[in-house]
Amino acid sequence: MSHPDTPADRPPKMPPAHPFDFDAVRSDDGDDKLHEECGVFGVVGLPEAANFVALGLHALQHRGQEAGGIVSHAPGIGFNSARRFGYVRDNFTKASLMETLPGHLAIGHVRYSTAGSKGHTQIRDVQPFFGEFSMGGAAIAHNGNITNADALRRELIDRGSIFQSSSDSECIIHLMARSLQRNIPERMKDALRRCEGAFSVVAMTRTKLIGVRDPLGVRPLVLGKLGDGWALSSETCALDIIGAEFVREIEPGEMVVITENEGVQSYFPFERRASRFCIFEHVYFSRPDSIIGGRSVYDTRRMIGVELAKEAPVDADLVCPVPDSGTPAAIGYSQESGIPYAMGIIRNQYMGRTFIEPTEQIRNMGVRLKLNVNRALIKGKRVILVDDSVVRGTTSRKIKEMILDAGAAEVHFRIASPPTSWPCFYGVDTPEREKLLAATMSEDEMCAHLGVNSLRFITLDGLYRAAGVPEGRDPAAPRYCDACFSGEYPVAPSDMLEKGFQLRPAAE
Amino acid sequence: MSHPDTPADRPPKMPPAHPFDFDAVRSDDGDDKLHEECGVFGVVGLPEAANFVALGLHALQHRGQEAGGIVSHAPGIGFNSARRFGYVRDNFTKASLMETLPGHLAIGHVRYSTAGSKGHTQIRDVQPFFGEFSMGGAAIAHNGNITNADALRRELIDRGSIFQSSSDSECIIHLMARSLQRNIPERMKDALRRCEGAFSVVAMTRTKLIGVRDPLGVRPLVLGKLGDGWALSSETCALDIIGAEFVREIEPGEMVVITENEGVQSYFPFERRASRFCIFEHVYFSRPDSIIGGRSVYDTRRMIGVELAKEAPVDADLVCPVPDSGTPAAIGYSQESGIPYAMGIIRNQYMGRTFIEPTEQIRNMGVRLKLNVNRALIKGKRVILVDDSVVRGTTSRKIKEMILDAGAAEVHFRIASPPTSWPCFYGVDTPEREKLLAATMSEDEMCAHLGVNSLRFITLDGLYRAAGVPEGRDPAAPRYCDACFSGEYPVAPSDMLEKGFQLRPAAE
Amino acid sequence: MSHPDTPADRPPKMPPAHPFDFDAVRSDDGDDKLHEECGVFGVVGLPEAANFVALGLHALQHRGQEAGGIVSHAPGIGFNSARRFGYVRDNFTKASLMETLPGHLAIGHVRYSTAGSKGHTQIRDVQPFFGEFSMGGAAIAHNGNITNADALRRELIDRGSIFQSSSDSECIIHLMARSLQRNIPERMKDALRRCEGAFSVVAMTRTKLIGVRDPLGVRPLVLGKLGDGWALSSETCALDIIGAEFVREIEPGEMVVITENEGVQSYFPFERRASRFCIFEHVYFSRPDSIIGGRSVYDTRRMIGVELAKEAPVDADLVCPVPDSGTPAAIGYSQESGIPYAMGIIRNQYMGRTFIEPTEQIRNMGVRLKLNVNRALIKGKRVILVDDSVVRGTTSRKIKEMILDAGAAEVHFRIASPPTSWPCFYGVDTPEREKLLAATMSEDEMCAHLGVNSLRFITLDGLYRAAGVPEGRDPAAPRYCDACFSGEYPVAPSDMLEKGFQLRPAAE
Amino acid sequence: MSHPDTPADRPPKMPPAHPFDFDAVRSDDGDDKLHEECGVFGVVGLPEAANFVALGLHALQHRGQEAGGIVSHAPGIGFNSARRFGYVRDNFTKASLMETLPGHLAIGHVRYSTAGSKGHTQIRDVQPFFGEFSMGGAAIAHNGNITNADALRRELIDRGSIFQSSSDSECIIHLMARSLQRNIPERMKDALRRCEGAFSVVAMTRTKLIGVRDPLGVRPLVLGKLGDGWALSSETCALDIIGAEFVREIEPGEMVVITENEGVQSYFPFERRASRFCIFEHVYFSRPDSIIGGRSVYDTRRMIGVELAKEAPVDADLVCPVPDSGTPAAIGYSQESGIPYAMGIIRNQYMGRTFIEPTEQIRNMGVRLKLNVNRALIKGKRVILVDDSVVRGTTSRKIKEMILDAGAAEVHFRIASPPTSWPCFYGVDTPEREKLLAATMSEDEMCAHLGVNSLRFITLDGLYRAAGVPEGRDPAAPRYCDACFSGEYPVAPSDMLEKGFQLRPAAE
Repeated sequence: MSHPDTPADRPPKMPPAHPFDFDAVRSDDGDDKLHEECGVFGVVGLPEAANFVALGLHALQHRGQEAGGIVSHAPGIGFNSARRFGYVRDNFTKASLMETLPGHLAIGHVRYSTAGSKGHTQIRDVQPFFGEFSMGGAAIAHNGNITNADALRRELIDRGSIFQSSSDSECIIHLMARSLQRNIPERMKDALRRCEGAFSVVAMTRTKLIGVRDPLGVRPLVLGKLGDGWALSSETCALDIIGAEFVREIEPGEMVVITENEGVQSYFPFERRASRFCIFEHVYFSRPDSIIGGRSVYDTRRMIGVELAKEAPVDADLVCPVPDSGTPAAIGYSQESGIPYAMGIIRNQYMGRTFIEPTEQIRNMGVRLKLNVNRALIKGKRVILVDDSVVRGTTSRKIKEMILDAGAAEVHFRIASPPTSWPCFYGVDTPEREKLLAATMSEDEMCAHLGVNSLRFITLDGLYRAAGVPEGRDPAAPRYCDACFSGEYPVAPSDMLEKGFQLRPAAE
Repeated sequence: MSHPDTPADRPPKMPPAHPFDFDAVRSDDGDDKLHEECGVFGVVGLPEAANFVALGLHALQHRGQEAGGIVSHAPGIGFNSARRFGYVRDNFTKASLMETLPGHLAIGHVRYSTAGSKGHTQIRDVQPFFGEFSMGGAAIAHNGNITNADALRRELIDRGSIFQSSSDSECIIHLMARSLQRNIPERMKDALRRCEGAFSVVAMTRTKLIGVRDPLGVRPLVLGKLGDGWALSSETCALDIIGAEFVREIEPGEMVVITENEGVQSYFPFERRASRFCIFEHVYFSRPDSIIGGRSVYDTRRMIGVELAKEAPVDADLVCPVPDSGTPAAIGYSQESGIPYAMGIIRNQYMGRTFIEPTEQIRNMGVRLKLNVNRALIKGKRVILVDDSVVRGTTSRKIKEMILDAGAAEVHFRIASPPTSWPCFYGVDTPEREKLLAATMSEDEMCAHLGVNSLRFITLDGLYRAAGVPEGRDPAAPRYCDACFSGEYPVAPSDMLEKGFQLRPAAE
Repeated sequence: MSHPDTPADRPPKMPPAHPFDFDAVRSDDGDDKLHEECGVFGVVGLPEAANFVALGLHALQHRGQEAGGIVSHAPGIGFNSARRFGYVRDNFTKASLMETLPGHLAIGHVRYSTAGSKGHTQIRDVQPFFGEFSMGGAAIAHNGNITNADALRRELIDRGSIFQSSSDSECIIHLMARSLQRNIPERMKDALRRCEGAFSVVAMTRTKLIGVRDPLGVRPLVLGKLGDGWALSSETCALDIIGAEFVREIEPGEMVVITENEGVQSYFPFERRASRFCIFEHVYFSRPDSIIGGRSVYDTRRMIGVELAKEAPVDADLVCPVPDSGTPAAIGYSQESGIPYAMGIIRNQYMGRTFIEPTEQIRNMGVRLKLNVNRALIKGKRVILVDDSVVRGTTSRKIKEMILDAGAAEVHFRIASPPTSWPCFYGVDTPEREKLLAATMSEDEMCAHLGVNSLRFITLDGLYRAAGVPEGRDPAAPRYCDACFSGEYPVAPSDMLEKGFQLRPAAE
Repeated sequence: MSHPDTPADRPPKMPPAHPFDFDAVRSDDGDDKLHEECGVFGVVGLPEAANFVALGLHALQHRGQEAGGIVSHAPGIGFNSARRFGYVRDNFTKASLMETLPGHLAIGHVRYSTAGSKGHTQIRDVQPFFGEFSMGGAAIAHNGNITNADALRRELIDRGSIFQSSSDSECIIHLMARSLQRNIPERMKDALRRCEGAFSVVAMTRTKLIGVRDPLGVRPLVLGKLGDGWALSSETCALDIIGAEFVREIEPGEMVVITENEGVQSYFPFERRASRFCIFEHVYFSRPDSIIGGRSVYDTRRMIGVELAKEAPVDADLVCPVPDSGTPAAIGYSQESGIPYAMGIIRNQYMGRTFIEPTEQIRNMGVRLKLNVNRALIKGKRVILVDDSVVRGTTSRKIKEMILDAGAAEVHFRIASPPTSWPCFYGVDTPEREKLLAATMSEDEMCAHLGVNSLRFITLDGLYRAAGVPEGRDPAAPRYCDACFSGEYPVAPSDMLEKGFQLRPAAE
């Protein structure tokens, strides 16, 4: 049957853009950091489970500050959900809201921004995502990034799925909806076997709490126990806040299915591969009071400082962290070098996220709104500044200027990670490659560009040593995912390759 | 493959409940009226189309006061949407919002409450609904009710569709998503052929404005023209507000597809049936300044008063409308009877919808917050009160008390519709049958129950005469849907029958 | 001691402008009406008195829609207050707010806009005003306008009073603060004896409810009784809503002091003068269900229509009110003339007050957002439109255009008040004299300007007859204040004269 | 003249309570700290002065987090003001608000809570306060506390002043209003000569920026220069943020009057006394990057740690600060003792102020929401915890428990201030004396009460040494106000004495 204007309806090459709804928040605090995109938390077997989830998410807020969501289930009442922009503490602490989330079973999610709606989060992009299936509902919360989500989305739309969000994570729930399996955990296995990339997922049915990590185990996921209940969390610090005992990490490629009565059942639904945990979780993403791979994150960071002091010593008067993320490495550098540790830069504690509709003057203030130099301390001193990373280099330049304005005699940057020269496609918000300073400059060029007396990054081997691999990085089988430093992507980023992203030549 | 706790995941009989999100509004103004559930409006070929849609929706606000939504499309920008709780005038008049809805093509919807979430509207239930298909996106706005929506929903979920709302209207977009047709109008025909019940739909693709009425034509839908552009609207009063010319009604069973360049194309995709327009649109739902079937709604209502005065005369001093819906019939009654028309009850213009968290005292005030008796006028008089309908009878009782408290000598109720004794399943919010006063009482019993000197309803024949059928109702082939009065449902309400609703016995 | 730059601190001629705070609402619904500025209500001797006040203010909302405030007092707790922008029903119905206003004694106020901050109301301008005196606190709510407020303000500032608002009413509380009297009622007498102009004041101390009317009795104030409690109200319709019995009007120049135990005490603190009640209260300001001077306001308005039909008959097909204020006069005109009454113009019930940040298109819609012509009814008819008044004439012109666009054969305006050619300085928001159509044009010129077939205003005598003065207006001793029609101001508007306002020459 | 119920109006002993308005914020983050009550900032001679004030207030946010306000003046426009609850960065960064505050002259204020409305701040209590005088308006912002405010308030009310707030600072503006002086600076001198206690005031007229410090100079106030403009600020860190040069401190007892053209004029209107700057500004209130008395606050705090290590050494494995205020002293302790510095407690950066309507569970979490122990680091270690002060001891107890739960072998508290055993009446929010742990317990009793292995406070002499007085405290003429430690109040707190507060016996 012919319709007069079919041409205008001809299929576009890419899935059509989702309608944009103004009721959104912009996210750009211009802080020149890589940002973890998400934190996940779930609880089963505890009364008022949603309260525990709220506490857990509060402890994971550093993994995503734009928005948060919680889904709970109570027998006889069903599923309830709440999704809000803003901090957990501003939304999910109110009795009037939490009363709407009853039950012993709940999961939650905090997010920074997604692959889909960069810069604008809409409430429909806020997880957990929920789907009604014929055997009951399921909710999922996803940390990571599905690297073949565009292809999956096209395929699902072709078959009649209607996407509500622009999130890659929504593919999982649609794949589950179309699975022929008769129960939800099996549908989830079906779905995730189709997904490439990084995923630490916390999910729930009416009775089960489910946790899954992708075969590489790129993002963290840990299991905790509190009384008769169980918790799944991105990091151990969120187990601490609810008073839960840290049981173990979920293993790469493992799925755990937890019920109030039968406890934890473990499955390994994927083809086994060597794991590749994200090394940047050690450097910056995780909280210093979390434990990863049996190691204190704080101590790994302090050891990075120790390694840096060995690799890149310099004669100076003070070792100052760029607050707050550079602090543990600065302590380590001071301890190894014997140069006194000092708070040369003070952070304003009242900076939140981005400004809404700021005046020109506020926009121009930039880093001064957040950081101030301790002028009386710095004046005339040779200062070593320890920072966690250099992304675009914009903030580093401004800090250098502030320090020199305050009368420092010399400024030496020491960076607690190797040069960040490749984007991450596994759940981290990175600028395009051209905007990464290290993608286009050598260390010396960066030093000149930043205008500092010296600039040194820790080596990849030094970083591995600090992260518990005494022999350094094994190029044949690296223990961690270090693609942002090395350009070696353990999973091919297929959507991005289709869009024209150039991998590092093998010969490089 | 067996999973340990499959039983708990066993399919429930009904599609599982959707998660309840606290971010909702309650809707219950306790005004003892039947309520139209929706109004729809769309525009193509006019700059800043969304502004015209906002104006049209404002004129249709009486058809739904809880929430409204608009979707627009602009080439190069794509689809944009905004959905908000509250009045159109409080949301869709702001420049900052309307700027986010650019383009020459837009549709909108106002809603009262849906079949799904009675009493609590959630933002995700607010239309228009949008779906991305492989050939582009489409948005739909629906007035009416799909009487087999539960069955369709179950079937769609079984095949992997994920519903986002509890609305019956969402079935349409999922059916479209699964159609094998290659363009959107054809997919829409496919979808609507599966739908039973009442539907006046306004939809849009990237280039087309589409309007469809179900084969019975239960709900209204009209076509207007403004300059080079076209408008579709539930009622003509919304064409007036934008200054558009009323072209014609969309016919029962017709689909029109309108593009900026090619104008209106007409299709009749359904099996033809005798039309059954809702007679209550004449009595109460539509605005008095709208034109239906070539007749002024105001004049039909005035004629109801004239018929009532003939059918049920009474000796009295004053004819007073119950404001505001009884006014035209009261004018007609006065004109026919010669008894002076007077404003015996004054309406407070500052009553909005329901109260949030009201004090006990406010809750108990009920109708006094809205209506006050003109005491000096009423005292010692024999008063005829003309109202449009009696649903539960709660308000009528209170009004009678107020009138007697003010010293009226006699109170005579005259009702501009026959006894409402059956629920509507075609897009009107009616109480359960047991709560309808006329379902359990005769006219005399109702008179005694209300405690008035006399109570008379217009006959069904009288109503038909006033509505332009001089010969009255033809029982073999009634021109209108009058199921709420007669119990004769022109389309079997299949979901309701499955839930146990008892039709009127044929012999009754 | 000399200070170098004293000159810049030299006193300005007028009291300095108050700091403008952005947290304000603009008020301009452009409806071309005169607006009453305030309504007042107070209650003593009833539990949860603030709830009664909220109900009373809701019934008085037509006297002021911008903002409202309530002060209550409870022994042991003290005074509590709440002041809010917006409708009473949106603020003062919530249990959570009303719980903060405990006690048996409360007063409240609704306001349109004040003499001070035209067009922008700030929350600090919202009454009741409160003052702490050494013998305890007092709160006052004022309807009217103090015509010598500027002079009083200058004098008070010179002596060290600090004004918080730009309201003329604040003078009263400062005059009270400076009185040497030892109790609050005496201080109030002292203060009000210094005030010229119109004032109906409801005030409270910790134990007393106080009501005062200026010697002319320009604005209304009535006394009601409910059980053991008493109420003071601007109008009787607000007594009805709380179920109170209407006892009597407070007399011009009377002060009543009411306590829970001792009941009502009456004083006459002012020099006695002949009373001059505002005749426009009959025409437009008061609600039709209120009783003024023993007469139903509705009936007075209907009688205006009867008088108009006698004074200015015309051959036509329909008598249509301009809704809603023209309705009673239109009914009277129809009854007297025998020409059928009809709803030729339909009012949109969902128009609230002004728009915030409207789009250009919305701004241009003007009256069409509020009114629509009943086209099918009007077409080809000779129509008499009855309106309450013509102020600037802007709306009248637009209505005429709408009626003619709809195909009316003839349009005849009949106005239920004489030409409004002088501003009011006694508590009504009027445009400057130059903007009043009748200040610059004769009746014929206005008819030509509006472009209608005929235009007739009721005569001043006709209005007096309708308002219960069968002999018409006595020029030597008019019973009402009719300055807006006659230019005869019963109290010299001294602040305005100082600003250069020209009174009507005696010879005119 | 007798009035029947005068008795009820008999003057109460204390000024009557101000009406409480529900539109308020509660302030209690239960963090067991003393809190500075205010920060002040002003600018003259810079375009968009209010923007600079906003930036300055942001840098002073630690001095008051509940609310902030800005007043600006522009010739031809007049005074404008904005007062808001919440952080500066959430309100005073928006272009739409800042545009309402034009001009080259502006002052601002941030507040914690006031003497008046403990626990509930109402918007009318938010400074700057404004008064219109006959020679023009003036605005004032006050840091400190007027210790005879109750007496002044009574006196002013007796004479007819009407107070709008419950703030002690409002006395200043009323005293100014009643002064007979002809210009505002002279009126301000008049007013402040009547005030006892602590006051650092920033004020403005239409042309002048004024700064005053009380004769003791209890609170800080500094002068800065930026281009042709001048700034007054509580601390130097706020000069840094706007890029202003630190010129000098305003001297105790000095008034500076600054105009755009004539620069700074200095006056000494008070009787000269020996200065007594608040030593707690060094310990906790001021930001570590501020400079006070020529000394870096950070360095003073580090030196307190050095002194503590000398006075109270202990054998341990780690020195950990209680974040964030204990950090500099912990660094000093570590440097002096050679025991490694470590981040044993991690602070959640997403804690704001108090919660609104929190769930029971959230309420019970207390300090765990804010702090988490770095378990892997602490386990089995002997830990020295360095904190700035112990007020009630509630937080210290919980921290001890957390540290022991995490497996610490020993916990030693070292406190960077002497025991806080007396309340402050000079602008600091302190609990009543009975609630101060040190008011009722000896150091040993506190150690037992807290359940730690050892607890030591720095001595008052040690503190003076760290604060730049090598010879320690001179009991005959202490350089600082140390009343909270010593009970020696340099100004008698007259209001409090009248309320029954007992000074320390001379013999004690």
